[in-house]
Amino acid sequence: MENFKLFGNSKSAEKFIDDTKSSNRFLFSFVTSYTETCEIPGITLAGTNSDLIKFTPAADAEYLHYGYCKTIEKIPMTPDGKPTPALLTKVALESSSIPHLTINAGSKVVPQLPVIETQLPTGKNISVNDALTDSQVSRAVDFGRIVGRSLSSLTDCLIIGESIPGGTTTALAVLRALGFDANVSSSMPNNPTALKNQIVNNALERITSEHPYHIISKVGDPMIPFVSGMLSSASSVSDVMLAGGTQMLAVLAFASKIGFDEKSTVIGTTSYVTDDKNANFTNMVKQIADVPAISVDPGLKNSKYSGLRSFSEGFVKEGVGAGGSIISSMLKTGNNQLKFLEMVEKEYSRLFTAEN
Amino acid sequence: MENFKLFGNSKSAEKFIDDTKSSNRFLFSFVTSYTETCEIPGITLAGTNSDLIKFTPAADAEYLHYGYCKTIEKIPMTPDGKPTPALLTKVALESSSIPHLTINAGSKVVPQLPVIETQLPTGKNISVNDALTDSQVSRAVDFGRIVGRSLSSLTDCLIIGESIPGGTTTALAVLRALGFDANVSSSMPNNPTALKNQIVNNALERITSEHPYHIISKVGDPMIPFVSGMLSSASSVSDVMLAGGTQMLAVLAFASKIGFDEKSTVIGTTSYVTDDKNANFTNMVKQIADVPAISVDPGLKNSKYSGLRSFSEGFVKEGVGAGGSIISSMLKTGNNQLKFLEMVEKEYSRLFTAEN
Repeated sequence: MENFKLFGNSKSAEKFIDDTKSSNRFLFSFVTSYTETCEIPGITLAGTNSDLIKFTPAADAEYLHYGYCKTIEKIPMTPDGKPTPALLTKVALESSSIPHLTINAGSKVVPQLPVIETQLPTGKNISVNDALTDSQVSRAVDFGRIVGRSLSSLTDCLIIGESIPGGTTTALAVLRALGFDANVSSSMPNNPTALKNQIVNNALERITSEHPYHIISKVGDPMIPFVSGMLSSASSVSDVMLAGGTQMLAVLAFASKIGFDEKSTVIGTTSYVTDDKNANFTNMVKQIADVPAISVDPGLKNSKYSGLRSFSEGFVKEGVGAGGSIISSMLKTGNNQLKFLEMVEKEYSRLFTAEN
Repeated sequence: MENFKLFGNSKSAEKFIDDTKSSNRFLFSFVTSYTETCEIPGITLAGTNSDLIKFTPAADAEYLHYGYCKTIEKIPMTPDGKPTPALLTKVALESSSIPHLTINAGSKVVPQLPVIETQLPTGKNISVNDALTDSQVSRAVDFGRIVGRSLSSLTDCLIIGESIPGGTTTALAVLRALGFDANVSSSMPNNPTALKNQIVNNALERITSEHPYHIISKVGDPMIPFVSGMLSSASSVSDVMLAGGTQMLAVLAFASKIGFDEKSTVIGTTSYVTDDKNANFTNMVKQIADVPAISVDPGLKNSKYSGLRSFSEGFVKEGVGAGGSIISSMLKTGNNQLKFLEMVEKEYSRLFTAEN
């Protein structure tokens, strides 16, 4: 496929592409979660300001579903008007009629829409507290397994995307704790590396055992064990695409400890992630598991709208499963980058030109 | 199919059977709900005593999923040990690998398991209060439509079952209010008819308009508008089987007011419901909509266990989508009554012989 770049086990990637193209049955699951780590000033761009951050995952879910938000007035964007990557996800899913379900796995604010509810708690600020108790981690994995088993039995390819503000920092901590020398991507072009490293180092000091559940409870968040549980059960039933960047590396690293089927798993993301030399994404994937990465260039650098071009300039890069959704939509419809850009610009214009 | 009896539009029923047999993709959705009407002494047998009634839907959902309950110690049963119809549903779904999802639409107690959460309120006691506000009815329909659209896009036949203690009484009230002269079935062999009629008459006195949303708000419950919403959207995407007895008549009656596709809808139930001369079930279906009823005899009268024979003696009769699940499992596997009885007895023995 000229639209994609493949990394890692290319045989596995090609098999995934052939399988899913011939079946055409995808299901996108959107996991919303929360870590209080995002409340540390300067850590994230998700949401226009720190008071609004907690609404971002719920607002993304509402926008994906309704085309507008209920919890807040406008769709999530940066202070200077760069939109949420949910815009890309929505256009991808709608244009290819891929159904989606939202799963609340520890969000602070629940979307105003029927969602799969797990009753998991939010994660605590890992700079100063344990993220979760051991039994909460265990429940997150168990409930992830239940949801993964249910959803994978309803599709041939389960796509899993996430939204957890501050999640790149907890992902970085989990990767380091599990022995990977990770540099982490961010929704900000000038990644606040020093701040993140400080938080991660504070968190790592509390670790007293190499047990993976212990590591998640000390320095993780609810999303990582929950999505790992989903992957663990779903990958034995259907193909699974982890749709995302750094957070999905942490999922892959933890899931490798609890067991999953590498042969039916891929990571799908944007070229903005795989081209980011600092994050060294594709090498990280290879170190963690024998799972291929597929990346797509959404072509936004050619957009007439600066708000869309900013994605290609290192803002946001990925989130809400945008990359994986675009890949899946192209596999299902045969649409190319040009057609996708056209549809994204139409949606961008619907959202921002008229009233904003 | 020798296993089934068909009532009403037989062409439609045969088309449903042919369609689903060739596709074999079923999804069972289990809607749990609550009406305070069930707290009126003497109204229902669901749950061993009135304190436990509120746990019944959650316990049924947990048993379906885990094979045991978390919210209460034992699976729901009558005071003298007659088990919940969830036993039949579980054996049917497991033996045919039909996936299932639980939807909480106004339960008093939420099952300890990931469920689709609608944030709907419980229904009030219609003997003395309005069941719901108008806006709650409207939200129940809207959220039902959302869930129905999502789930029907993941299957070729969406089976909808329910558990709402006291639900036959609210169903009776809704049917009468919508102009149908209904006699209503019950989980008790000596149906407390006088008590139910008194409650229904009290409720009907509060009705001041013929608007169907008004009627539900005065004398209904959260399940009826929610499942009607599901039917309304799902029937335009996939086949839908309403799995149940009296409650599904009320759904059919209200759904006829908000619109649904009769050609892709059937009612599936047990012969214990369709053979009940008092309830006059199949004639009621015909009066309400051009939708066929399919009924199955689970063969429990031949069981060696009196707890199972009691189903055929007029206890319980239906619930938790038992009839529709059995029909679907037989369509998918080709199993007959004898094979089904054998599997049910094995499960009954697992549950009751060892420890109880």
